[in-house]
This record gives sequence, structure tokens and C-alpha cells, in this order.
Amino acid sequence: MSQNSEHKWVYLFEDGDGQQRALLGGKGAGLADMTRAGLPVPPGFIVTTEACNAYYANGKNFPEGMWEQVIEGLRAVEQKTGKRFGDPENPLLVSVRSGAPFSMPGMMDTVLNLGLNEQTVQGLATQTGDLRFSLDAYRRFATLFGEIVMGVAHEKFERVMERYKAQTEGGRDTDLSPEQLRDIIAAQKQIIFSDQSGLAIPEDPYEQLRVAIAAVFNSWMGRRACDYRRVNRIPDDLGTAVNVQAMVFGNMGAESGTGVAFTRNPSTGEKKLYGEYLLNAQGEDVVAGIRTPQPISQLQEELPAVYEQFRNIVELLERHYHDMQDVEFTIERGRLFMLQTRTGKRTGAASVQVAVDMVHEGLIDKATAVRRVTPEQLDQLLHPTVDPDTDAKVVAKGLPASPGAAQGKVVFDPDEAEEMAREGEKVVLVRQETSPDDFHGMVAAQAIVTARGGMTSHAAVVARGMGKSCVCGASVLNIDYSQQQFNVNGIVVPKGEWITVDGSTGRVFLGRVPTIQPTLGDDFRELMTWADEFRRLRVRANADTPRDAQVARDFGAEGVGLCRTEHMFFGDERLAAMREMILADGVGAREKALERLLPLQRRDFVGIFKAMEGLPVTIRLLDPPLHEFLPNMEELLGELSELKLSLQRAASIRDMDRTLDEIDGKRKLLHQVERLHEANPMLGHRGCRLGLIYPEVTRMQVRAIFEAACEVQGEGVEVKPEIMVPLVSTAEELRNQAELIHEVARQVTGEHGMTVSYTVGTMIELPRAALTADKIAEHADFFSFGTNDLTQTTFGLSRDDSGRFLSKYVEVKILPDDPFQVLDRDGVGQLIRIGTERGRSVKPDLKVGICGEHGGEPRSIAFCHMIGLDYVSCSPFRVPLARLAAAQAALEMQDGAVASDK
Amino acid sequence: MSQNSEHKWVYLFEDGDGQQRALLGGKGAGLADMTRAGLPVPPGFIVTTEACNAYYANGKNFPEGMWEQVIEGLRAVEQKTGKRFGDPENPLLVSVRSGAPFSMPGMMDTVLNLGLNEQTVQGLATQTGDLRFSLDAYRRFATLFGEIVMGVAHEKFERVMERYKAQTEGGRDTDLSPEQLRDIIAAQKQIIFSDQSGLAIPEDPYEQLRVAIAAVFNSWMGRRACDYRRVNRIPDDLGTAVNVQAMVFGNMGAESGTGVAFTRNPSTGEKKLYGEYLLNAQGEDVVAGIRTPQPISQLQEELPAVYEQFRNIVELLERHYHDMQDVEFTIERGRLFMLQTRTGKRTGAASVQVAVDMVHEGLIDKATAVRRVTPEQLDQLLHPTVDPDTDAKVVAKGLPASPGAAQGKVVFDPDEAEEMAREGEKVVLVRQETSPDDFHGMVAAQAIVTARGGMTSHAAVVARGMGKSCVCGASVLNIDYSQQQFNVNGIVVPKGEWITVDGSTGRVFLGRVPTIQPTLGDDFRELMTWADEFRRLRVRANADTPRDAQVARDFGAEGVGLCRTEHMFFGDERLAAMREMILADGVGAREKALERLLPLQRRDFVGIFKAMEGLPVTIRLLDPPLHEFLPNMEELLGELSELKLSLQRAASIRDMDRTLDEIDGKRKLLHQVERLHEANPMLGHRGCRLGLIYPEVTRMQVRAIFEAACEVQGEGVEVKPEIMVPLVSTAEELRNQAELIHEVARQVTGEHGMTVSYTVGTMIELPRAALTADKIAEHADFFSFGTNDLTQTTFGLSRDDSGRFLSKYVEVKILPDDPFQVLDRDGVGQLIRIGTERGRSVKPDLKVGICGEHGGEPRSIAFCHMIGLDYVSCSPFRVPLARLAAAQAALEMQDGAVASDK
Repeated sequence: MSQNSEHKWVYLFEDGDGQQRALLGGKGAGLADMTRAGLPVPPGFIVTTEACNAYYANGKNFPEGMWEQVIEGLRAVEQKTGKRFGDPENPLLVSVRSGAPFSMPGMMDTVLNLGLNEQTVQGLATQTGDLRFSLDAYRRFATLFGEIVMGVAHEKFERVMERYKAQTEGGRDTDLSPEQLRDIIAAQKQIIFSDQSGLAIPEDPYEQLRVAIAAVFNSWMGRRACDYRRVNRIPDDLGTAVNVQAMVFGNMGAESGTGVAFTRNPSTGEKKLYGEYLLNAQGEDVVAGIRTPQPISQLQEELPAVYEQFRNIVELLERHYHDMQDVEFTIERGRLFMLQTRTGKRTGAASVQVAVDMVHEGLIDKATAVRRVTPEQLDQLLHPTVDPDTDAKVVAKGLPASPGAAQGKVVFDPDEAEEMAREGEKVVLVRQETSPDDFHGMVAAQAIVTARGGMTSHAAVVARGMGKSCVCGASVLNIDYSQQQFNVNGIVVPKGEWITVDGSTGRVFLGRVPTIQPTLGDDFRELMTWADEFRRLRVRANADTPRDAQVARDFGAEGVGLCRTEHMFFGDERLAAMREMILADGVGAREKALERLLPLQRRDFVGIFKAMEGLPVTIRLLDPPLHEFLPNMEELLGELSELKLSLQRAASIRDMDRTLDEIDGKRKLLHQVERLHEANPMLGHRGCRLGLIYPEVTRMQVRAIFEAACEVQGEGVEVKPEIMVPLVSTAEELRNQAELIHEVARQVTGEHGMTVSYTVGTMIELPRAALTADKIAEHADFFSFGTNDLTQTTFGLSRDDSGRFLSKYVEVKILPDDPFQVLDRDGVGQLIRIGTERGRSVKPDLKVGICGEHGGEPRSIAFCHMIGLDYVSCSPFRVPLARLAAAQAALEMQDGAVASDK
Repeated sequence: MSQNSEHKWVYLFEDGDGQQRALLGGKGAGLADMTRAGLPVPPGFIVTTEACNAYYANGKNFPEGMWEQVIEGLRAVEQKTGKRFGDPENPLLVSVRSGAPFSMPGMMDTVLNLGLNEQTVQGLATQTGDLRFSLDAYRRFATLFGEIVMGVAHEKFERVMERYKAQTEGGRDTDLSPEQLRDIIAAQKQIIFSDQSGLAIPEDPYEQLRVAIAAVFNSWMGRRACDYRRVNRIPDDLGTAVNVQAMVFGNMGAESGTGVAFTRNPSTGEKKLYGEYLLNAQGEDVVAGIRTPQPISQLQEELPAVYEQFRNIVELLERHYHDMQDVEFTIERGRLFMLQTRTGKRTGAASVQVAVDMVHEGLIDKATAVRRVTPEQLDQLLHPTVDPDTDAKVVAKGLPASPGAAQGKVVFDPDEAEEMAREGEKVVLVRQETSPDDFHGMVAAQAIVTARGGMTSHAAVVARGMGKSCVCGASVLNIDYSQQQFNVNGIVVPKGEWITVDGSTGRVFLGRVPTIQPTLGDDFRELMTWADEFRRLRVRANADTPRDAQVARDFGAEGVGLCRTEHMFFGDERLAAMREMILADGVGAREKALERLLPLQRRDFVGIFKAMEGLPVTIRLLDPPLHEFLPNMEELLGELSELKLSLQRAASIRDMDRTLDEIDGKRKLLHQVERLHEANPMLGHRGCRLGLIYPEVTRMQVRAIFEAACEVQGEGVEVKPEIMVPLVSTAEELRNQAELIHEVARQVTGEHGMTVSYTVGTMIELPRAALTADKIAEHADFFSFGTNDLTQTTFGLSRDDSGRFLSKYVEVKILPDDPFQVLDRDGVGQLIRIGTERGRSVKPDLKVGICGEHGGEPRSIAFCHMIGLDYVSCSPFRVPLARLAAAQAALEMQDGAVASDK
């Protein structure tokens, strides 16, 4: 499309195609849809996202022809409303709103009542017969224009308002007199003048419009928008549309009002209209959470006809969009206007409920239901809740704005929240109310608590979108930003103290309260069944104990993909035996210590095999560097120096002797620890390198596995052990260990007179293993990519040490994501692909999976599906998420295949 | 070739083709060559290497038909000698020697005088008229057969000999009477009987021969042979041939003798016959170094005719083989017999001298000369020598058996030498004399010292082959194995004490004596010039100081491939400023500390630029983790605990205050060190990650580089800085740092009003960088593979920590080589190939080199040539070696190309 003066930059609502979200933005597309469906929508037009991009391409100048088309649009609106833009007698007022292709709640700037000036404000008063209303509209315009277009701090205007409101009896906006409003407007203009070095709001409405459209464009590249897009992975080059729409007013008396509503409950998914409204108010009053609004059901009593009309409209919208809608409306003197419709954000629980319900209602098919629930939403469903039996003190109760329990240190400043989170601290952001400027702090926080605002306030909407726990409107909290503390019923809670937030019930607790896992409903199970119908990738769990294995199985795991035997060695008795083994002098002593470990290991394997009856269990042989089991060197040094001090204080010769003995013992231990110390333990003597140097360790572990297998099999339980050799870098290592495994297996099964069917495979977790996978596959029945280590070695990046710079890396976009969270496809993924291809080139039926943390991360799972792995393995609580993500990946590839078939 | 009874397993010398070394073994091929040239060689035959391999394939049984062919061979020898095998009247005696395709000096077992028994020994006495000789031959046979074939320890026989020799007047072998010899033989048989549970030497000569041939075959898989092949990278499946040859005797009186000689001096390369002989002795007496022999020139006086004949023969041999020969001969009653000819082992100096001389003599061409000198030999040439100005005490003087100076702790036991070397200790192996059983200890040692034996003793030959310093026959040393010490002129030197060995002069010093680098002769320079004519690969040096750069340039480096700026920060003044920078609180303080470092860096760069005038200098920006510059945490903890103790001992309040202050300071420092501590520093905050988080560090370094460049350029010196960004894992990192570099470069050159031509590139030292090299290349003018780090991350193996298991890995052949010494082609090499290909796919003229330690290792250099890199960079002293290796790689590929052209 050539961008000449003929190019169409502006669409009237009635000319727009609701499918063209990319061009018209989400809001514009919804308005066009509703207009074309004949719903009551104030007339208006859309400046396209293309215009926004052209604006940037053009050095921040409107593209040729755009302004002329805006004027044409205005003329059309004038015609429909019978008002004229800038007409002192009968002025047309418009709102100017942003509208990006993806919903970005509260992130973009809006100007209302544009077209007002010292002349038209009089005309509005005459026209409406309401001077106070008219002046209030002018005040709102001046505030928004000053703030958003001209960049004056909100607080400055707010302070003026507070001062004047304090002079009224009711203390509310509506209590302000016309005279006070005039003074306020004058004060605002003065603020703008002194703040902006003599600049002023243009008197010319056209100039107002021009500047406002440019401001919307500019806000696309503002910090908060960029932040939001970064977190939500929305590309920068989509651009935003601008919606210019005739104003309607909810603040024209008792039969006017404004509200927002969801077609279903966005917290629970219940099929019931859900929302809030305020009579005699403008939309921003609801969203900003400054006044606490009424539940939507109340409208049925207050304005029954309007309510009825509204209910019919939203039902129509839901049928049109096949999804739950989030709508905004205004009632102007008893007349309903729809201002927005969009897909409603929802909690995980609601997402599942709505999707399942809509299948039952025949609105969508199963595939759509599976596609629609995001893995993050499902994960949210699995979030912990506060233990109902707790007797911890509830210090505040607010609205249950976003479910889930979370804990963190209290912090009041979003910057500080971000800073502390970067340091690895868990924080809860506590605010009077939140605004888009606080977004980065909300991202960083575990939970959000506000003292003001309702279920659809900024804090609530954003928190639900992020799946973060949130309590809103906890008005009992007396927040003191300057003292960095809040006061609640006489209790002072300073910054840094721990609180626990229960976003499902709205409760706030002091301290760290125990939490428990949720139970899952039938809708969840049904959705999971559907997901299983679509997915190809199998899902296993990483489980080290019989209990983990049971949980995993309950969540639908199809086996254990990673059983870390070393985790079995923690615990007092076990650790002691393990230390004895490590400190053993020579093979004989080591074997003796291993004999003590053998029954402990066997017992664990028995439990896991039983829990996973009939399903494969992949057991990884000992992996970590041995010194992980030994005491910390610095601690030992500290203890030693303490002992030396106490030697000087010794009261008797006997005391002294005993202390000297202790010093001696510590010294010996210290020497051992020093001997085993490694400069880079991650790259040290670990993994199969242990089994190669100490074959007796491998022997013991394999014996424990097969003794357990024989025992369990003897009880009639089917076992499928898969023995996995870790940290292999050359085929020879695997060959060596596999031989040993087969030898011990023969021995033990021979002793029991049994046959156990088992396989031997390896972790592919080093670049060299992936690169030489063809050779390694000769000795392996299966591969399991250990993506944690593979990421560490591919990037040359220690996960333990990367905290210092990795967040900065993501922030300045050196990396798109933390590669330990989201699999790096270009590097690590390339190695996984190479390893899989080469492995299967010599052994076509080689079973290949991954067992790093990425096994529970949706985009990583999609990658695993794409390159044809057999399974992913993740932590037990991520299993449902992995099942869903695997199904979505399969559906997405199917879509791709269909698309390319055409 | 089907291995049926028709197969030819045995070749008479006259039927063998000297080119068939693989089939006939080196010794056999030489004997065949000499026989066919009409030289005086005792008749014999060769059992082929194929027979050896068939023997192993056949479960250690002779292949079908072999034995019959051996009998046929014997018949032919009988015919030529007129003697009969096993004939009591006129017995044929034979030697049975191994002969592998590659020379393995002293590694294989030899049996002499085979065919003797209680009957034939009488026949031999009658035949020779010398009973004593005959009995001595029988004694030797019994000794060798007992030792080598039956496995009785040498010492047991030796003890008997020593006992009887002590009873004679002269104390030598030759002083033993026939009666004594008879007693000795009886005693030996008794030893064999009791040692081998009643077994005895077969009386039947055929049985002797059968067992002896099998023993030679068996020795191919003996430990010492396997060890030797491992160190010398000779494949196991070559097999050994067996040479069966009629005996001739050098111990039949004053006109008999035996000797070994080189056609040129194997130490210096001088074109002059060089060797030793003993009259009235058998060959083993010379080689074993038990008696000290006469120089070969002496033979001219003692047996002038024989000497003349000998000189003509060896000249002929050298012309035939186009190389220096190492020959063995025996004179039997005035008649010369040639027993062996082979390519002579030589020192590095000799190798260069001989190669250059032979080109001048027209014997070989330049390419052959370049091919013939091994990089190891060249390296040997560059070994340090003892500072001639030292006044360190010489405690012993022996023969200068293998040049070069080396130091280590005295150790007497080869196992212990190996053990200590594995622990990272430098050792010198001190022995009475060495035998093949000591081989592993010699490999492990820095140098070898023996109290007995000459220039061609086992110790000397082996040490020269390995390029290890060696002093032989230092008879003043009184070695006491049981006390683990040696005594020299009243000084007792126990195990563990340091000594310095000068193999070029034969001196042994107490302690660690300063050494200096050798000066290199014209022959060396000439050879290097020829090498330069053939090589394509450029050779640069890793140099961090102006001095290093100068040395490198003198050795022919064509630039600096790696200048590690961090090395510049060590040294008191610099370290202090560096610590200040690291501990700085915030950017301001850090910049201040950096200002102090700037002039120091600049000064170094000025020096390096001048030394490398006109050549490129690659400067790597700061790379190591910052905490490397801070004090060690354990030390700090120790100091802190000391301070606490001294606090309790404080004599006054002032004392106490001062101590408290010190404690405070240490605590602060400790806190900083703890803060910077990393679990895996190799994978931590280092490389370009430093420059990304602290751009001011990059700024300072780049400023120093360009200020230096401008200064030097102002003096008319041409500079070519190449700025290298380390540890890049994503293209974005490089883009970011490259922008910064260009910015500072513009700034500084602008300030100086100059233009400096420079490039910006990166280290490819992480797998991800190699895998995404196409993206990285967009921002790079050059790549330099950092193979040390690349090996660490590809293998997931820390060089600092791998000592504990890597030697075991190589020992049990999990790995063919230590991958930090020899580039791993399959894994690391694959990444280098991928990185190079992808880099050049987007930037065809991308300059690519390597700068890890592998840049100075011949096989790694060959790989770099093969995959088309532009240059290698190595330590200054390895530069000549790299030039040679690069030339050899080019010649080898040319040969391959020629071969495949045919």
C-alpha cells in the first residue's frame, strides 16, 4: 500500500471492519463492530495504527493527508450529533483515546471533553443548562490535557482539588460550586503556566485535537507502555490507533452514570453479569477507583429499563465474539451508550470455568477451549492459598481482587520494589491506589495491596492479568509514604516487615502465614481431558520422593522424567552416611559407607516405583559435586576460630583438652573440605565423573534400584526403571557406566531369579554431548536434555551467579528473556535440535525428552513439541500446565499445517 | 587376504621388501634392506605383524601355517650358516627380537642365544673352542629367557651375578670362571624353578623358539608397550613382527666387539660418525649401559679395517634412506656384521641441523626438511638452559645425555614420580640406571638422572626421544633406594629436595637454579624461512607486555593475537588502583579509580604498539571476574581470627583501639569479598558482562588504547589495534560494546586530531557464540576462538578442577588426550568449524584465528589450517613451533590433495 495522500488513515466507526484489530486497535475494532451491529455507540472515528507507525517513520510528523482525513471525520461526527467542533453555541466535545491492537489496560493516555475552551464552556453550559457540570467538564479536560498532553504531575492538580474539596461540606467532587470550579480551573492553568515555562492549553479546539493525537502517538513509546509490552511480549512496531469519539456524559445528574462490566464473573467464571457503576460520574471515576462504585445488579433497581437494554446488548456481544466481554458504558440522562467492548481479562479459575461452560453452551469447540486458557492462567489456578486453619492475625480486609496467596516484605515505592526484587527479595507493594506509573513495581512484587479502589480498579485489573495476588480497597490501612509505614488499628507496620496477602478472600496477615495447595474442580479435570486429546508430547514429572511421585501422578504425570537420587541424601541420618562415604579413605571404607546408604535408597525407590506403577521412572545416578554434602568452609573456619578463643578461656586442664580435641577434629574436617574444594564446582568432579572414578558409587545405586524393582515386582507391581547417567561429555563415559549398570543389573536380578525390563540412557546437558549425540546414542536407549546445565554451559553462565547482571540484561534487551526461565531457542534450542537429530540418525526409536526447569514453561514446551521430542518432565505442580501447553503447541502446529496447506 | 594355510606369515630377509615396514616391522625392514643391498647381515627371517594380529584374533594361538613357515625359515638359515638348530655338535643359535613398525626403543623383549641347552652348550664350546664363552652365552640365554619369556624379576638373576662377580678379582663379567658360570646357570635354573612353581626353560630348542615368539607377541600388549604407544600415539592394532636371526658374537675375544652408532651426532647434528662400542661384549652390554663403552672413533685405531668397512656401509645407508641412521653392529673375530639400521632419534638441535645440512648436501628438498623436524624437536631447541653466570653448586657431573635444563623434586621410585606429577608436582627421577619398567616414571618427570650408563643407555635414548633433560652416568651419586636419598661427596639429598639438571652439559645442581632461554643458530633461522614458504596460516603471539611482544617478534610472530589487559593490573601499584575500582561505591568513585589506571594501561599499550610496529595487536578488554583481584576469603578470615586473638592479648587501651580498627577494616573488606564471591566464577560476572554493567571500565580501556595509538602514531610508528570483546554469548552484547568502543574511539582520535585505523572483534569462547556466529559476525571485524574457555564450556569441565579425574580419563582412554592440551576436534573443533563457517557466511572476509593455548600445539594447529582459519596465536616461545606446524599442516594437505588428484 503506497502511503500517498490517497492513503486511508482514518476510518469512521461505521466504515471499520471489526476483524482489523491490527489496523484499528482493539478498542476501535470493538467500537466499529458495535456501531455496525446497530448498538448505541457515540459516533466517532479511528486514526489507524498505520498512521502511528508512519508518524514515527516521518520523524514524529503526521503522515501526508492524515490531518485532512481527521477533519473529514470530525465533520461526519458533527453531522451525526448536530453539534459543531469549536462552536461557541453548540460545541461538539470529543474524547481522544488510544487503542492498541492488544489490550493494554490503563497503559495509554486518554483526554476527555476535548473541544472546550473559555468560549465553548459557556456554550456547553447553555446547551446543557448546567453551569456546574459544564465547568466540571472543563476542569476535567484541563486536568487531563495538562497531565497527559503537557506532562504536568498529577499530584499538582490533585492538591488543588483536595484543597477546594476540603472547603466543601461533603468533601466530594460533586460538592464543588461553580465558583470553586472556576477558581480550580484558573489555578490549574496557573500550574501549567509555571510548570511548562509559559505554555498553555491551546484555546483552538483543532490545535487541542492535533496535540492530543500526537500525545497518544507519543505515549506508545513512553516508558510505561514499553514496560508493559516488554513484560507481555508485545512487539514495539504494532503502533497504537487513536479513537476520537463524541463525548457522552455520565455526570449529568441522577439519571446519568457510567460503569464497567464483565459478561461473566472474571474471578470465578460464573455465568452472571458482573460489574460496577457510579451514577452521576464520568468513566474515569470508576476505573481510577477514587470513589467506590455499586455492583451492577443494583442498576436493575435504579434504572431497570437501561439495565434490561444493557443485558441484551452484552449477551449479543458475547455471542458475537464467542468470548467473555469486558464493556464500558455511559448513561446520559437515561440513555445508554456503549463505549467499549473487549475480551475480558480473567483469573485462571474463571478462564477454565468460562472455557468449559462455553463448550457446554455450544459457543465454542473443545480445541478453542484448550487454546483459550493460557498456561499462566492454569498455573494461577494451582497457586497456594492461605491455610484455612491458620490462626494468624488478619490485620486488614479488602476486596478479593486477584486470587492466590503470596508473601513478601512490605514496600511502598514501586522503584524500591523493583530494586529489592532484583536483589532477590520477595516484596508486597502497598499503595493508596495504583496508577500506570506503578506498573514496574507491580511486576516486581509478589502481591499488591491498595487502600482504595474496587474490583475493576487499576490495581485489580493489572494484578489479575499478571496472575498476581491482589487485595484492593483495604481502607482500614492508614498509609504514610513519608514515614514508609502503614498503621492499621494501632499496629505500625514499617517497610521491610513480612505480610501475607490472600487475594482470594481479600485478607492481609502480618508475618508469613502457612499456605496450602488448592483442590481442583471438575471443570479443570474436563479441560485437562480435552487437552490430552490434542497433545502429542508426553508429560512426566521430576520427583525425588514417593510423595512427589504421588502428587505428580494425581496431576496426570505419565511417569517420572527425573528422579534426583542425591536429594535422597539430605536428611540427618543420610547425610551422615553420605559424609562418611565421601571422607572414606580408599575403596574399602567407601564401600562400607555405601552399604549404609543402600537400604535408604532402596526404600525410596520402592515407594516411587509403587506410586508410579506401570509408568516409567527415570532415575539419575549421583550428580552433584561431593563437597555439596560437606559443611561450608567459612562456617568451619568460624567455628575453629571460636574454639581457639574458648581455648584461652578454658577453666581447667580437662576443658582445655576437650577443646583441643574438638579443634583437632574440626581441623581434619576442614582439611577434607579443602581437599574437595573446587574453583568451579558446576564444571568439576560431578555427574558421571563420580561414577567413573568411584565405580562403587554407581554399583550401590544400581543395586538399590534393582533390589527395589525386584521387591516391588515380587508384589505384582509393574516397574519400568530407566537409569540415567548424568553429565556425559563423551560416548566412552556412557559406554563405561552402561556396562557397569548392565553388570550389576544381571547380578541383582540373578540373585532374585527375576527379569526386570529396564533401559539405560543419559542426560544431554553439555554442548559436547549434543554435538556428538550420534556417538553417544550408540550406548543409550534414551536421551533427556538437562536444559539447566545445558543453558549454563552453552551461555557460559552460572545460574547461581547470574543474578548480578541477568535482570539488567533483560531490561536493556541484551536478552529477550532470562534463559533459565524461557528456553533459548537460538543457542540451547539449537543444540537440543542437533542432539535429537543426530541421536535419532543412528537410533530412530531413541526416546528423547527434557527434564530441566524449562519442561514446565509453555514457550519452551512448544519448542519441544515443534522439534519432535517425546516428552517433557517438570515439577509435579507444573504438570497440568505442561499438558495444556503441549496441547496448545500441537493445535498451533496443526493450524500452521492447515494454513500452509491452503 | 584370506588367512588360510597358504598365507605367507614368514619372510626371509632376502625376500622382504624394505618399504613394507607395516608388515615386517622397522627392524625387519632394515635387515631386509641391508641383506638385499649385499651388506653383511647374519641370515634370518621375519614373522610378520599380520601373524601377531592373527595370533591375538586367534585367542593367542599361532595362525594356521605360521609355525611350519618358521621351521622352513630355520632350514634356510641352517643352510646359509652350515649349522643346525638343536644340533649338539654344531648348533645354530638364534636371536629372537621384536620389531614393531615404529621404533619403540627398549620397549620390546629380546632373547639371545636361543637354541642352547645342556647338550648344545657343549657343542658350542667345541665349535668355538671356548668353554667360558659358551657357558657365558648359556648364562645370558638363561637370564633373558627366564626374565622375558618366563617373567622372573631381573633383580633375582642380577643378585646371583653380583655375588659371583664379587668373588672375582676384577669384579667384571669377563672375570668369571667357567666353573662360576656353571654355578650361576644352576642357580638361575633354581631361581626359575622356585619362582615359577616348578617350570623350567624348555630343553627342546624348538619349544624355546615357539615360546619365545609367543612371548614377543604377548609383550605387544604388555603394560610398558601400551604405555609407550599411548604417550607416542601409536595405534594398538599395528602389531609387532618377530625377527629370528642367526647369532653372531661380539664377545669372542679381543677381535670381537659390538657397538651402536649414529651416522651423525644425534645431540648436535654434526656430520660426523658418532657412537660407542665395547670389545669382547654382546650388544646388550652396550645398550643396558652396564659397562661404559669407547667412542666409535677409537675403533679406527683398534680395528682400522673394520672401521673403514663400517664407515662405507653407514654412508651407503644414509644415502639409501636420505636420513641419519642409527645402526647396531657386531664384530665376530674380526668380521663385521650389521644387526640393525633405523632412522636415528635425535635432539631438536640435531634434527634442525641434519635437516638443513641434508638440503645443502642435496640429499633432501626443503619440503622434506620442514616435514622432518617435529614441532616437539623444535620446542626442545627452545628449552631453557642453566644461567652460565650462576654460582650455584654443581653436586654431580655426568654425561650430557639429553639437552635442556629442568628442575624438580628428587624422587627415586617411578610410581611415586607418576603419583607426584599427577598431584601437580615437578619431579626429577633419579635412578641407578633405568629400564623399560621405569618408563611411566620418566614420562612423569621433568628430567632424569642416572648414576650408571652411557649416551646410548636406555635413559639417554628415551629422554632424548621425549625431549626431556637427562644426565647419565653421574657415578659420583651414591643412591640409596631404601633410605630414599642419595649421597654425593658427603651431602645427603633426600627425596623431595629440589635439584636442577642441565642435560646439555651433564651438570646436576642442588636447589632451583635460574635458567635462561637459548640463542638460536643460523640453521634454525634457515629452516624457519623454508617453513614460512610453505605455510598459509599466520602466526601471532599472546603477549601482555612490551617485553613479551619483543620476544614474540624476534621469534617471527606476525602480530599480537591476544593481549590480556588484566595481566597488566597485577603488580602492587596497579593492584591497589584496581581494588579501589572494584570496591568503588557507584559510578563516580569507580571512574575516579579508573582514572588512576588509565595512564598505566596507556603506557603498556605504547610499549606493545612500538614493539609490534606495523603489525596488528589484538587487545582483549577486561575479562576475569573482579574478585580475582581481591584478597582470598579464607586468608581474610584467618587474619580476622588472629586479630581477635591479639585483641585479648592487647597490652593497652591504645593497642586495643588500634586492633579494633584493624578488625573493622578487615570486616569491611571481607564483606566486599563476600559480596563479590561467586559459586562458579568461570561462569560468572566476567568478560563483556563487566563492560555491560560497568561501561566506564570499557571506556577507560578503550581510551587508553586510543591515547596510546595516537601517541605512537604521532611518533611515526604504524599501529594496528584490534579491540576484542571477550565472553560474548549473544550478538547484542557485542553490538552494545562495539558501539561504545566506536564512540570512545571517535572521541579520543577527535581530541588528537588523528585517524587511527582499527577493528573491533570478539572472542568466540562460548558454545552459544559459535552456534550463533552468523548473528555475531554482523558486528565483528574478526573472531578469535578462545579455546581454553570453549573447551571448558563445551565439556562442562573446569580446567582448575579437572586434575582430580582427567589423568585417569586419559589413562583408561575415556579421552584420547587432555582436551586442554590437544584440541578436541569432535566437540570443540566442531564448534570452531561451525563458528567459522557461519561467521563467514555473512562476512566472507571475516578474519578468524585462535588464541587459546591450543594455538601452540601442533595437532591443534593442523586442525586450524585444515578448517581454513587465518591465524593462530600462541605464547612467544611457541611461535617457531607454530610456524613449523603450520607449514607441515600445509604440506600434509598438499600431499592429500596430490594423492586424491591421482
